[in-house]
Formats: sequence, structure tokens, C-alpha cells
Amino acid sequence: MNAPKYFEEINPGDVFKTFGRTITEADIVLHAGQSGDFYPHHLNAEFAKTTPFGQRIAHGTLTFTVVIGLKACRFNPVAFTYGFDRIRFPKPVYIGDTISVLATIVTKQEDPKRPRFGRYIERVEATNQRGEVVLVCDHIALVERAAPISQPD
Amino acid sequence: MNAPKYFEEINPGDVFKTFGRTITEADIVLHAGQSGDFYPHHLNAEFAKTTPFGQRIAHGTLTFTVVIGLKACRFNPVAFTYGFDRIRFPKPVYIGDTISVLATIVTKQEDPKRPRFGRYIERVEATNQRGEVVLVCDHIALVERAAPISQPD
Amino acid sequence: MNAPKYFEEINPGDVFKTFGRTITEADIVLHAGQSGDFYPHHLNAEFAKTTPFGQRIAHGTLTFTVVIGLKACRFNPVAFTYGFDRIRFPKPVYIGDTISVLATIVTKQEDPKRPRFGRYIERVEATNQRGEVVLVCDHIALVERAAPISQPD
Amino acid sequence: MNAPKYFEEINPGDVFKTFGRTITEADIVLHAGQSGDFYPHHLNAEFAKTTPFGQRIAHGTLTFTVVIGLKACRFNPVAFTYGFDRIRFPKPVYIGDTISVLATIVTKQEDPKRPRFGRYIERVEATNQRGEVVLVCDHIALVERAAPISQPD
Amino acid sequence: MNAPKYFEEINPGDVFKTFGRTITEADIVLHAGQSGDFYPHHLNAEFAKTTPFGQRIAHGTLTFTVVIGLKACRFNPVAFTYGFDRIRFPKPVYIGDTISVLATIVTKQEDPKRPRFGRYIERVEATNQRGEVVLVCDHIALVERAAPISQPD
Amino acid sequence: MNAPKYFEEINPGDVFKTFGRTITEADIVLHAGQSGDFYPHHLNAEFAKTTPFGQRIAHGTLTFTVVIGLKACRFNPVAFTYGFDRIRFPKPVYIGDTISVLATIVTKQEDPKRPRFGRYIERVEATNQRGEVVLVCDHIALVERAAPISQPD
Repeated sequence: MNAPKYFEEINPGDVFKTFGRTITEADIVLHAGQSGDFYPHHLNAEFAKTTPFGQRIAHGTLTFTVVIGLKACRFNPVAFTYGFDRIRFPKPVYIGDTISVLATIVTKQEDPKRPRFGRYIERVEATNQRGEVVLVCDHIALVERAAPISQPD
Repeated sequence: MNAPKYFEEINPGDVFKTFGRTITEADIVLHAGQSGDFYPHHLNAEFAKTTPFGQRIAHGTLTFTVVIGLKACRFNPVAFTYGFDRIRFPKPVYIGDTISVLATIVTKQEDPKRPRFGRYIERVEATNQRGEVVLVCDHIALVERAAPISQPD
Repeated sequence: MNAPKYFEEINPGDVFKTFGRTITEADIVLHAGQSGDFYPHHLNAEFAKTTPFGQRIAHGTLTFTVVIGLKACRFNPVAFTYGFDRIRFPKPVYIGDTISVLATIVTKQEDPKRPRFGRYIERVEATNQRGEVVLVCDHIALVERAAPISQPD
Repeated sequence: MNAPKYFEEINPGDVFKTFGRTITEADIVLHAGQSGDFYPHHLNAEFAKTTPFGQRIAHGTLTFTVVIGLKACRFNPVAFTYGFDRIRFPKPVYIGDTISVLATIVTKQEDPKRPRFGRYIERVEATNQRGEVVLVCDHIALVERAAPISQPD
Repeated sequence: MNAPKYFEEINPGDVFKTFGRTITEADIVLHAGQSGDFYPHHLNAEFAKTTPFGQRIAHGTLTFTVVIGLKACRFNPVAFTYGFDRIRFPKPVYIGDTISVLATIVTKQEDPKRPRFGRYIERVEATNQRGEVVLVCDHIALVERAAPISQPD
Repeated sequence: MNAPKYFEEINPGDVFKTFGRTITEADIVLHAGQSGDFYPHHLNAEFAKTTPFGQRIAHGTLTFTVVIGLKACRFNPVAFTYGFDRIRFPKPVYIGDTISVLATIVTKQEDPKRPRFGRYIERVEATNQRGEVVLVCDHIALVERAAPISQPD
């Protein structure tokens, strides 16, 4: 089991770098099957040749799923996802591309409504083997405090 | 094949309602397998009993994948995803919950850098069978214009 | 949700053309896993080299599943499958082939036993990227009438 | 490896009975993923309550895939599928139903165009644990002759 | 259904040879998803280039699963797995390798505690298309006796 | 990325306890699909009622795969699997059982043929939510030494 990492131990500038993972044709087939999105950009090699990309590309939701999943190899039992902001896909992901993720804590703040928790924003940036950024987003997380903030009466 | 729906034909207030889909234990198992996220909140029924939810919950990335996939049953060959903003998960998704999606066009604007395209923001709201909202986000899309805007010289 | 299309609106000669979809090695592996058919024609690349085809081929049930599934992108809530006749596989499907489907209404008739329904036969023809037909069958469907036929007493 | 069973050894009245297999919710989820058919009759438990069946039912193509797959546990290296006739689905398959297959050789005939092969038709009947028939079809197969028929000159 | 094969009918020197099966990239992706093992040796093509193998290799548990599964095409309803000894992986399995299995009964003995059963050890050896052994193990099985040994009183 | 843990840092008595994971019906269906083992003990709920277990049980290779996969959440880039000894399955795993793993280093020794490596044996014990042991085995691993042993000339 992983040790908890509390709000007090998390600071802007902290970085975490994940393994890389190669996106395969099988991943795209499985993602179509899970999402129900069988658009020809992802599943039709002939159609894909006629697009500006010239080949099939990964679903945005697949890239997002793999990116967030890569981060999950580091489990913090006291942190919880609140949401995600500004998800962008600067470059497409092709079959055979290998993606790794760099996550950087960018801000940290008290959560006025939850004295036992703090909140941080983590900039998530996924890069392929050519160094191109393929996904960015801000991950907003709640994390328990080791010591709850004292509440004025 | 679906007919294209151009920027000029898309207007704030347009709504689209999808089928519903039941999230099964199999979906969660498959999503763990695709994402690599085997956190006990999703995969460990005994642990889950000890959480505030009292049972296993779907991964946020699974809910997001299914929600965006449900929208994919309506294919517009001239529209492209630019990104997603403000993804939030107001309520958990449990095994057996049935989710459907209401998408509403909220804004529409020219894209100064791309005269052949316009941009719209679609509010995506996913609701379970109890009427509770389980995911909201803003989907930002680019869509071709039937007639490109004339460029001043 | 899709609008219903009643018996009265369906006529011989109506055609429907689907997206194309590329059959991948992953599809064959998944189909072996779903069907339990691990015959070496589908799963053993060395054996397959010794057959007249010279390579692995898709299961007939996989091709059939994908073909019928491609048609499912157009949902008619008042139509129901009654059965299939004369399924034939004129050419094999290889890994990497892209299949699309043309469905043509060929006959339409009252259903004496079901006054609220009519019946139609749809010829389903799946073609690969070289224009070769890889599957044909007749799909027999029941569809609700907008107005039930009056019953003589 | 299985021994070949030639045309001369196959006779009307021969029967083959397979194992049974329980159709699970996971099978339906996987089949939706493979076929792309996410119709609410199969994937939406709330909608399914409102249908005459009162619950989700298996895809016809799933039942067909499992039935033909169950037969594949007996491999005959000299037999080949030619096609299928008269596929019917007399009763729905529900989650948790267990299906087994009885295959009976019904006819056998020379194949005038292929002196090295004969042809047989096998009646395939799948039954659930309540003894109800859920699928019938005729499987048409080509099978090598131990001795090719002599060709008159 | 398969006929039972009792302890008395099983003898040292008996061999069984299975079909071959090609290990695909999809198999590795699916195995990562089932096991939760996303190590870069299996899933990261860029990393794998830097290892002594120069490419991705199958998980040991995947090779083991496929090898034992290949043997399962011959079902003996009166035999049960007791355990496995000395599993070794003399050579790696690469994507595209085709594996087949030779199983040889090596010993057979009474099971003093279970008069209705005997025990045998089966040497399992899996070979790739280059004739290299990729997995060996000893499979220990219990099998019913046609005639239980008489118990002295 | 995980820091390497060298031979010198690994000692008999070291223990590692994993997360738990619930074995679902979907896991068994997926494992049948990956292994090709569709035996009725795993896939046929009606047959399973007639066995001493009274219900379907997980494949031994599935339990083994999950157990070894659970250990993979702790990646040591300088350790390699050599093999497994004495795999036993003292109790069956049922659908819904939750398994966790305790791994204990039991021995550690030089590897005379590989001066840069040492070898350790890790006792792997998987337990269900009732505290029953469902799998034991010995995992034999090679691990790099921080300092290679000096070679006499």
C-alpha cells in the first residue's frame, strides 16, 4: 500500500514523470468498443488516408484515458479528483506513438468550504516520442490535510 | 453517411439528447484494463464498502469516455473537437446506473485565425436514472462554414 | 433519439450505405475470445501461410457481426430483426481490409398474423476496399405500421 | 491435432452436442464493443424494463457468434463453411441464460463443381436452460472427400 | 461432450500436441489490461528498443495463460489441476511469434489420501516457430480412477 | 519512474502487501477469451451448480495472472523474473471474491554464473476476503547488484 501524501507535503513545482506507453491499434479498437465511437477517423484506414493526418488517429478520450491512467501508477490514498480544466490536443496521436506524462503542481490553496482538505492544480502534459505535446490539461484535486485548519468560532 | 451540418446551421439553444447506457461492472473492468488505473475505489468491492460511497464507483475517465461516446452516435463530418473545459463530476456513477446525455449549444463565434471555420461551445450534461447530474463539461468544437467568411485585403 | 420509420415509409429500392471499418488483428483476437473459435485459420500466422489464402482470415461470424453492426448506426425504434437468410462469404476478409455495407430494401409485405406490423427483406452486401463482395445476406425485419391494417370481422 | 473427418464418414442423422455456456452481461458489453451496436435493448437496463422483454437481451449476432463458436470445440481440418440459411431467433437470450447446441446432419450431397469435395447441411439448434430454442439455422459446409469422385472423360 | 479419460488410461510417454497460436500485440495489450502489469518491457516500444531484447516481449503470465489454454482444447471431465512446478521461460516471446505446446506424461502415481483418484505429472513444453523452447513447466493433475483402489480394512 | 532496488537492499523477511482486487464475472469471461479455456467450470453457471463448488470458479491461470499483476504495482527496473515454483491453489476463487497478495523474501543467494546479479526467492501468498489462501507460489527473481562481485583471476 502506498503511504498517504498530505496537502502540507505537496508544493508548487513538484513534478512527477510517468512511464511511457505505446498506443496500439488494439487500444483504438478497444476504445471504440468502450466508447461506442466508431468514427472513420479512428477505425477506417482507407478514409483516414484522405484526411490531413493521412492515417488513423487515436480518439481524444483514449489519449485522455491513457494519460490519466499513466499518472495512476502513483496512488495517493488521501487525494481525490475534483475535475479537469482546459483539455487540449495540440497534436494527434498515431498508432505506434509512445506517450509519457509530466505532471507539475502549479498552484495550491485552502478550500474554504472543506477545512480538512486543500486543493491543488496539477498541469498535466503528455508528450510523444518526438517530443511533441499531444495533450495538456489542468487536473484539480482535493487532498486531505495532515492537520485540519482551525476554525475560528 | 451522415450529411454535414455547417456552422451556419448550428445555433445557441440547439439541443441533442442521446440514448441512455447502463454502466456495468464489465465496463469498469475494461476501463481499468485500458487506463491502467486499478485503484481500489473502482476494483475492490471490500475496500469500497469502507468509503463514503459504500460501493465501487466508475472511473472519471470512464464516465467521460461513455458520455462523449454517446454523443458520437450523431456524426457530423465537418465538425472537429478542439478541447474540453470545466469537466466536473457532481455525483459518482455506480455499477448499474444508466446515463444519458443532453448537449446544448451555448455559444457560437467566428474563428479569426480560420476563415473556413467557426467555433461553438456545447454544454454537455450527463444524468443518471435518478435525474442526478453525474458529469458536466463544455465541449469546444470547430466546424466548417458552408461559406467561408470573406477576407478583407 | 432517432425518429421512428414506419412500414409505410419503407419501400423497395431504398438504399442505405454505411461507414467503412477496417478489420484489424485485434478484432480477430477479440472475436476468438468472444466466440471461443481459435482455429488456426484465424489465429496462427504460420499455419495460415500454408493455406490457399496465404494469411490469416477473419471468422465468418466476425464479418457478419461487423456488417450487421455497421448498419446499427441508423437506429429505427419500430423495427425488429426476424431472421437472416442465405448468408454467404464470397471472398475472405484479411487483416487490414476495410468493409462497408450497402443495404437495399428488396421486398415488402403485409404480415397476416401481425396486423400492426409489416415485413421487409433487405439485401445486405458488404464490400472491401477493392470492391469485392465479402458477405451477402438477406435481413428479414418486422416494422410497425403507422396505421394498423383494419381487420375484417 | 484433430484427425480429419471426410465426406464419406459424415451421414445424415449424425449428431453433435456441445458444452453449455452462460451468456453474461460482460458478453453483451463486449459484443456491443465489437459490433458497434449499442442499441438500448442490449445496453440500457432502464429502457429494457419498458419493452415486452422487461430486461436487456443479447444481440442476435452475439447469440449466433456464441452458438457457432460452441461448435468450434470440435475441429475438422478438412471442412469449410459455405454459408448459413434460415437463421431464426425464436426466443430472446437474457443475461444469465445458458446455451448449448445440438447439431444434426440433415442432408449430404455431391458437389458437381468440386469433385474433391462434398457438401452437407447441418441443422444447428441452440437451447437455453429452460429447454427453449433460442436460435436455429442451417449450416452449409464443404468437406473433402477421402477419395475424389472419378471424372468421366 | 468429451468422453472421460481415467487414471488407468493415462500412461507415462503419452503425448499430446496442440494447435499453434500467434501472440499478437493485441494479446499483450489485453493481458496488461487483465493483469494490471503495464511494465515498459511489454507496453513501451521505445523503451523496449533499449533493452537486450530490442523489442517488446510478452508477459510471462500471458505466455503461461496461452500455453495452458492451448492444452484446454482437449477436455477431460475427470481431470483436475493440482498445481504447477518449475515454470521457466528459456526464451522471450515476441509479438508475432507462434507458439505450440507438446505435453508428455512423465510420471503417474497413486494418491494415498484419495482412493478414487490418481495423480500424474505432465511435462509441458511450448515452442515457437523457430523451434526454440519459450516455456516449460510440470503440470500436476488429479484424475479419477475408473475403479477406486480397494481399501484394506 | 521508480528507483532501482538492488540485490544488496533486498533481504529475507522483507514483505510487500498489495492492494486487493475483486475478481468479477467479466474477468472470467475475458480470461476465457484470452486463454481459449471455455471449460464449463468457469463459463457454465448451470453445470457449475452440479460441481462440489456449487458455482463457477476462476481459472487457475486467471488467479495467477491477477496475483502476479497485483505485485506489478511496485516496479523495480533492475529485477527480472526467472521462474515460478510450486504453484498451488488451496481454495477456489469465486466471482466476487477479493484477493490481495503478501510477498515475503525467503532466501537470497549469489548467482555464480552471473556476477552482476543475485537471486532471491519470494514467497507469494494470495488471500481472499475471508482470510483463506487461494494461491501460493515461489517467485524466483534475478536482480542486479549495486556492486558486481569481484571475480578472482
